[in-house]
Amino acid sequence: MAEIFVVGHRNPDNDAIMSASVLADLKNKLDGDNHYKAVRLGPLPAESELVFTEFGVEAPELIDHVDEGQKIILTDHNELGQAVAGIDKAEVVEIVDHHRIADVSTAAPITFINLPLGSTCSIITKIFDYYGIEIEKDAAARLLAAVLTDTVILKSPTATEEDRTIVERLSAIVGVDPVEFGMKLFKSRGGDDDVTVEEICSRDSKEFNFGGKKVWIAQYETVDLEGLRSRTAEIAAQVEKVQADGGYDAALMLLTDIIQEGSDFIGAGDIKFIEDAFGISFAEGPVWMPGVLSRKKQVAAKLIEFTS
Amino acid sequence: MAEIFVVGHRNPDNDAIMSASVLADLKNKLDGDNHYKAVRLGPLPAESELVFTEFGVEAPELIDHVDEGQKIILTDHNELGQAVAGIDKAEVVEIVDHHRIADVSTAAPITFINLPLGSTCSIITKIFDYYGIEIEKDAAARLLAAVLTDTVILKSPTATEEDRTIVERLSAIVGVDPVEFGMKLFKSRGGDDDVTVEEICSRDSKEFNFGGKKVWIAQYETVDLEGLRSRTAEIAAQVEKVQADGGYDAALMLLTDIIQEGSDFIGAGDIKFIEDAFGISFAEGPVWMPGVLSRKKQVAAKLIEFTS
Repeated sequence: MAEIFVVGHRNPDNDAIMSASVLADLKNKLDGDNHYKAVRLGPLPAESELVFTEFGVEAPELIDHVDEGQKIILTDHNELGQAVAGIDKAEVVEIVDHHRIADVSTAAPITFINLPLGSTCSIITKIFDYYGIEIEKDAAARLLAAVLTDTVILKSPTATEEDRTIVERLSAIVGVDPVEFGMKLFKSRGGDDDVTVEEICSRDSKEFNFGGKKVWIAQYETVDLEGLRSRTAEIAAQVEKVQADGGYDAALMLLTDIIQEGSDFIGAGDIKFIEDAFGISFAEGPVWMPGVLSRKKQVAAKLIEFTS
Repeated sequence: MAEIFVVGHRNPDNDAIMSASVLADLKNKLDGDNHYKAVRLGPLPAESELVFTEFGVEAPELIDHVDEGQKIILTDHNELGQAVAGIDKAEVVEIVDHHRIADVSTAAPITFINLPLGSTCSIITKIFDYYGIEIEKDAAARLLAAVLTDTVILKSPTATEEDRTIVERLSAIVGVDPVEFGMKLFKSRGGDDDVTVEEICSRDSKEFNFGGKKVWIAQYETVDLEGLRSRTAEIAAQVEKVQADGGYDAALMLLTDIIQEGSDFIGAGDIKFIEDAFGISFAEGPVWMPGVLSRKKQVAAKLIEFTS
């Protein structure tokens, strides 16, 4: 019996954590010949911790690398720059994701299910259905929480009709109102005042390769961007530090107000291509981008197209 | 209404042709907002022609490139070296495949369904089921033909239990015995005597990238390898010509006997890594490899692992 790790991306968000957690459980039900273990590559987001505690589920174990030959299932990413250290010598045996098709490759044919839905946990809900396996309350809660945070309570342009249907179904199983449950998750992150600039810039950061440029893009979601703006200079300094220390060609911070539905962009480094791609200028500091809620669909996709 | 091309790999085999043909029909049923058109990148295999004629279906149209911005769905491949000319400026909007995860990438999230089944047409059969769409006789015949040729009538090590179940179901819809139908398809290719060495080497050839090496691997399936061996010298000369003219680091021809269940390997160019990977030597000419029926699972996967 092999032990197979199920792992989301680095700097895990709630969808990365929950997709690994629930998929490991599902695989253990489907495949008695192997043992699937959910693991994570960074700290638990506050909302993940809340759900694990409230529904009595053990959180995935923290790891910092995988050994040579380790079998792994990737959830919520298929991009090497976002994957566990050691992936080049590990064996990727399955991928479930909802991002662009990137650069993870395999020697043998594997199952790779990528669908353009609002969250990886929506796809995992569909995999339960495909196998006709009942979704129990604790699994429904984990899946629902991830769909709600990843789609900003279905406000993000990444949210599809299928996500809405899935949210309705899962809410009924858990016995909660989805908007109330979603707001509880976002509020669990606490007020912005308690959060250091280091955490604002690291809570949900990802590395991308845009036409050979190594670019860091972080996103911090708040319900009170106006309040956070008093710390803009401090945050901009931290973005510059990350860009320089991390050897990034460019760094871009998105401060996203999920109530106002838009983001402040703060750039550092070689940002001309970002300015050109969006038709904006950072000359006078941060730029407010109304309607921009999705790093993936509204920011990364645009920069990939622009640099390819 | 956009016109979206559905296209298999270069030098199409029966699975590449039929997967594009049937998936285009299915997408036209599912999505009234766009028109899906099956196309192909090379001559029709004899068995594809037989099925299109017998079941009154129009064959995919031959194209040699796609224009900038053309939307395309890839079937039976996700490797740039096997894809249509112009893919770098086209927009890949969906992929259905059963090979290793390779190097096609996209800017935006798309549907990518890759499953380790014996043929892409097995996956398309499952997509019909997923949407609850009835498989009509002519679609069942196209799907069945592709599963049977791609799995060498279920003898290949790539054939799974699911493929067997699918073959049973599709055979019942078409009203044929699967082994008889499969043999009829293989026999439609004609005796080897009518086939030029150029065709033996081009009928099913693919380009691979193994650790930076550009490698050509072709496969020719026969029911009488013994008869074909009288032309070994002539075939070896053609393999050398392809390797030199095509600028390949190495070329490997598999002459596969589907009755004896094994292949003669004929190598050209920088073949040391192939010799090392398989523990064989081409010093005395072609090497008989008993049990080797699958280029993908038994040859390409081994060379990828060996060179990575």
